Amino acid sequence: MSRIAYVNGRYVPHADAAVHVEDRGYQFADGVYEVVLVYNGRMVDEIPHLDRLDRSLGELRIPSPMSRPALRSVMRELLRRNRIHTGLIYMQVTRGVARRDHPFPKNAQPSLVMTAKRIALPTGAAVENGVRVISIPDIRWERCDIKTVALLPNVLGKQQAKEAGAYEAWQVDRDGYVTEGTSTNAWIVTKDGELVTRNANQAILNGITRLTLLKLAERENLRLVERGFTIEEAKRAREAFISSATSFVTPVTQIDDAVIGNGKAGSVGLGLRRAYLDYAEGEGRT
Amino acid sequence: MSRIAYVNGRYVPHADAAVHVEDRGYQFADGVYEVVLVYNGRMVDEIPHLDRLDRSLGELRIPSPMSRPALRSVMRELLRRNRIHTGLIYMQVTRGVARRDHPFPKNAQPSLVMTAKRIALPTGAAVENGVRVISIPDIRWERCDIKTVALLPNVLGKQQAKEAGAYEAWQVDRDGYVTEGTSTNAWIVTKDGELVTRNANQAILNGITRLTLLKLAERENLRLVERGFTIEEAKRAREAFISSATSFVTPVTQIDDAVIGNGKAGSVGLGLRRAYLDYAEGEGRT
Repeated sequence: MSRIAYVNGRYVPHADAAVHVEDRGYQFADGVYEVVLVYNGRMVDEIPHLDRLDRSLGELRIPSPMSRPALRSVMRELLRRNRIHTGLIYMQVTRGVARRDHPFPKNAQPSLVMTAKRIALPTGAAVENGVRVISIPDIRWERCDIKTVALLPNVLGKQQAKEAGAYEAWQVDRDGYVTEGTSTNAWIVTKDGELVTRNANQAILNGITRLTLLKLAERENLRLVERGFTIEEAKRAREAFISSATSFVTPVTQIDDAVIGNGKAGSVGLGLRRAYLDYAEGEGRT
Repeated sequence: MSRIAYVNGRYVPHADAAVHVEDRGYQFADGVYEVVLVYNGRMVDEIPHLDRLDRSLGELRIPSPMSRPALRSVMRELLRRNRIHTGLIYMQVTRGVARRDHPFPKNAQPSLVMTAKRIALPTGAAVENGVRVISIPDIRWERCDIKTVALLPNVLGKQQAKEAGAYEAWQVDRDGYVTEGTSTNAWIVTKDGELVTRNANQAILNGITRLTLLKLAERENLRLVERGFTIEEAKRAREAFISSATSFVTPVTQIDDAVIGNGKAGSVGLGLRRAYLDYAEGEGRT
């Protein structure tokens, strides 16, 4: 079956999914995006993702491309046409097509592009053994709370991780504190059992999965603190993990050259992973 | 006559100039660009622009889309087809089309898009009266020396300037020093006659017009210093101006609410503008 994409009002074969070269997403990174997990046939945290999309658009003053009911109906139609059971929806909204000039154009219509694909979820040994992250300086701009397509620093960081044989790179601000991964949020469990993730301000993207995990951690009565932590504190942690819409909770068992805990996935992370999967099949579904 | 664009090997009507939605320029701002001035039928500083394109590509490890002779021939063909006498060439190279994933894709072919358009150059009163700039915090990433399409902060800054009734925004780093405008370099002439522009490091784009002006200033025996200057020093300056490939030298006669000099274009800026236009019709042409 061939993949189908949605581009500005039309469902088209993936190979034909194109935007104009003067779309401001292409020339200025003037756009935002969301990635929504589809798990066993249903979307997870759909509404929080759409709320965040609205927030990102609002911060950049890009009008919504369509009403929320219309958007939700496109998402469903795209899943149906692509027969996605487990996978993801990618949607991107830009300020639209206009003669190239930096300021906001007067009469541009926002562009909406949506794609869907199947993904395989990590299981068994991959989760049990965890992944390695490296630390790199955070060189990004000062509005990382907006989920924009200006992802070049994230691309460079992820490539650096890959070349170092790692799965992710944790970005470290100029004061020595971890902000987040290049496409994931960062978490640790300290030696005395505190679950720590950085407080959400303009330095990080407030992940939807991060927010769900905070809620689940609270229910499980974990000792939870939202604060910055240094890379040194992380290396001494009992456990560490990363979170994102498509990786849920993935244990981290090595940071640079430091082995975390006993080098296997920790119990807090694995517990939150299970709780998240229950959530994904239960109350998180729409 | 209809505009023609060049897109990955084909000359197409401007309206049909499109790239795939999974072009990494669209999804990741994973690309670079150049803007070359065409003045009275000839390109200005063509070779320095192509050298900088190569540098930008090298910094991001994007392969060149074609040899330099081939690229130069596309530039000429595009000017011919669009009958550009005075205007600009815009060219953008991205890492190409690949299934969406942060790291560099293995087998992507770099994309090359090129457009050309006519522009009217500012003259007479516009130059004589100068323009107003506002100062804003520099919130960009730490590799502004690479001419990437991750221009969202520049877009937001230019929009802020426009809404304030100004022509440009000068970005100020956290130590209080002006880095550059959102699409121009920043210059001042101090009360004691020193011509100052920020030294080129990773905080600014080393403008091609900036480099040419440095050369011309040296020939004219101006007292030239490449160093940072604060916005306060700029407000007390005798003159100020901005430079770019398409605006050459444009006098600045107001910074925020401070009038610069006597509120008219200054002699150093106007002299450099004349010298630049001579250069554009003389040794800078190819």
